[in-house]
Amino acid sequence: MIRPDASLGEIDPAAFDALVIPGGVANPDTLRMEQDALNIVRAFFSAEKPVAAICHGPWLLAEADVVEGRTLTSWPSIRTDLRNAGAEVVDQEVVIDGNLVTSRKPADIPAFNDALIGLIERA
Amino acid sequence: MIRPDASLGEIDPAAFDALVIPGGVANPDTLRMEQDALNIVRAFFSAEKPVAAICHGPWLLAEADVVEGRTLTSWPSIRTDLRNAGAEVVDQEVVIDGNLVTSRKPADIPAFNDALIGLIERA
Repeated sequence: MIRPDASLGEIDPAAFDALVIPGGVANPDTLRMEQDALNIVRAFFSAEKPVAAICHGPWLLAEADVVEGRTLTSWPSIRTDLRNAGAEVVDQEVVIDGNLVTSRKPADIPAFNDALIGLIERA
Repeated sequence: MIRPDASLGEIDPAAFDALVIPGGVANPDTLRMEQDALNIVRAFFSAEKPVAAICHGPWLLAEADVVEGRTLTSWPSIRTDLRNAGAEVVDQEVVIDGNLVTSRKPADIPAFNDALIGLIERA
């Protein structure tokens, strides 16, 4: 179990350099119903700071309405939802589109981490 | 644990009078990646036989691309996905639209069952 340092409502996105949205089915399914989580996602996109989402994580991006016109990847089960939200969905271990890094599954984590670190170093 | 009588690929939709899609997060998340499951859903819609989906169940309907222009309800977390798939989403304990019955959560089950039984009796 990971104990959070702060609750969603206490987070000031301006104080952070990057946002990582992990996977799991229940995690984004719960977060997408939290307005504070959606506000954090939108703040990172508005500021064009690095955002990395893997597996089911991009579901939260669909809810935040930030994927229109973006190229990304995800766990297979949510790709129709991402396309319906306006994204171009591809099947690659990692996709970088501007400030956004996405991957499909746990096996992609090394490439996912490398891409995210690269984005942070260039930011 | 419920042991199934048949696997998805063994099901002939023509031999059944109605389709019930239960909820849970993992259930539709898994079924939507099974082409046989999507074919079964589409066969029930083509035949205009009763289809009932509750909680996260309507996710499978979004994947099967059968909700465009339909009025329905669901668990709150998937409503954006259903709207993006072309559905009109409302917040009621049960919604009947043609052959389709939908509900939001376990507490809606009595109304859900009544509506489904009514559809089957009239079919």
